[in-house]
Amino acid sequence: MRNIKLTLAYDGTAYAGFQRQRSAPTIQAALEEALQDLTGERAAVKGAGRTDAGVHALGQVVNFLTASRLAAARFVPALNARLPRDIAVLAAEEAAPDFHARRSAKSKTYTYRIWRPAVRPVFERDRAYHFPRPLDREAMDEAAALLTGRQDFACFRSAGSPAHSTIRTIHRAFWAEEGAEILTFTVSADGFLYRMVRNIVGTLLEIGLGKHPPAWVGELVAGRSRPAAGPAVPACGLYLVAVEYGAEESGR
Amino acid sequence: MRNIKLTLAYDGTAYAGFQRQRSAPTIQAALEEALQDLTGERAAVKGAGRTDAGVHALGQVVNFLTASRLAAARFVPALNARLPRDIAVLAAEEAAPDFHARRSAKSKTYTYRIWRPAVRPVFERDRAYHFPRPLDREAMDEAAALLTGRQDFACFRSAGSPAHSTIRTIHRAFWAEEGAEILTFTVSADGFLYRMVRNIVGTLLEIGLGKHPPAWVGELVAGRSRPAAGPAVPACGLYLVAVEYGAEESGR
Repeated sequence: MRNIKLTLAYDGTAYAGFQRQRSAPTIQAALEEALQDLTGERAAVKGAGRTDAGVHALGQVVNFLTASRLAAARFVPALNARLPRDIAVLAAEEAAPDFHARRSAKSKTYTYRIWRPAVRPVFERDRAYHFPRPLDREAMDEAAALLTGRQDFACFRSAGSPAHSTIRTIHRAFWAEEGAEILTFTVSADGFLYRMVRNIVGTLLEIGLGKHPPAWVGELVAGRSRPAAGPAVPACGLYLVAVEYGAEESGR
Repeated sequence: MRNIKLTLAYDGTAYAGFQRQRSAPTIQAALEEALQDLTGERAAVKGAGRTDAGVHALGQVVNFLTASRLAAARFVPALNARLPRDIAVLAAEEAAPDFHARRSAKSKTYTYRIWRPAVRPVFERDRAYHFPRPLDREAMDEAAALLTGRQDFACFRSAGSPAHSTIRTIHRAFWAEEGAEILTFTVSADGFLYRMVRNIVGTLLEIGLGKHPPAWVGELVAGRSRPAAGPAVPACGLYLVAVEYGAEESGR
């Protein structure tokens, strides 16, 4: 069997998340249905990140096994012709037999988008979180910098996580502007706990509002208590931007 | 009666255009319904541009008469709380008694957005026209420059236009990039004929494809024949970006 790696973008608004569910539309189900229509096979698609309901992707990575003889690049137009308009395959390539979209991933990058104007967004509705209150950007930058490194992030894990260890390494975490109206938070790590990005952003916003000093991040991490941290922000602002693999794992 | 001027943004995807129709949702009907709910009055909303079905706005301007005593600025949050999520009031101000959104307008600016990558857009579906074929940008720039000035644009008017004269003045017309994936065409004029922007873009794309030289624009304008020009591009890429008024007309 060949192992095919796909890179995907999707608007998660209409989906109950990536992972297949019995009675709700998911990205995985849509992909598997398109693949079955194309190849006649019932392939199990494995995704690098199990994005939640309403969460988007600009660079989700999946893989699947197939006996199809279709040239790898041909999966792009063939699947796009069969997928709903809110999901698109951006790239397809032949992967090594042991490549696994989730287990082979070295790191993942998420971006959270916040709509800052007082008036609610029209084109960015469902695609950014409307949070117009004044924010202390300097304090938020300082707090973001405290997140990097290998730490126990139990305080940012929501209930329902299957992970045993809560230790992760955050490589980068920073705020930036996207045009005049959108503030973004981008974070790369070797792995993420359940709702970790949304819990981090909610916590950094509390710091931006002046409710806590930047050093609060250090206290929360040390305390390992989820209820102590800020509330999770809504799913609509979150994007899985990229999944990074080691050179030897990302193809052959 | 007071005369209130509103600036609006809307995603036109779900609407049969700006102007009220008997049995299809329109921007005008949504606005008038929100106003009636707010003021108890049945106001007639006049729009600067009668955008077609599927056409969007970043800066549509409307006005209406009201006996309400609400401070002008309060119309923004009060209407946004009553409007669907794909329409938003960006600004509200007191206008002179004789201000009329369409008749007082000195010029309007439209932008047409084209999605260039080979793979169809996900987040820009319904918001940009997917046209991935190679284009000669230099020829398109040259052709755009030939559009400016006071000319008879009969060749770019679709049937169904009520306008008597087909002479208009185009102040600016140019192509630009919006990020790496979107090509835009922006045009400002003292007025537009029916489907004029979409007909112009369709014509400039034929030039970009090398089917005709840039000078073809001059021949088309001189010939005054609509069938000679290029086909109209789809509504989904078109945005009414701004409406400009003389200083004396835009408030008091």
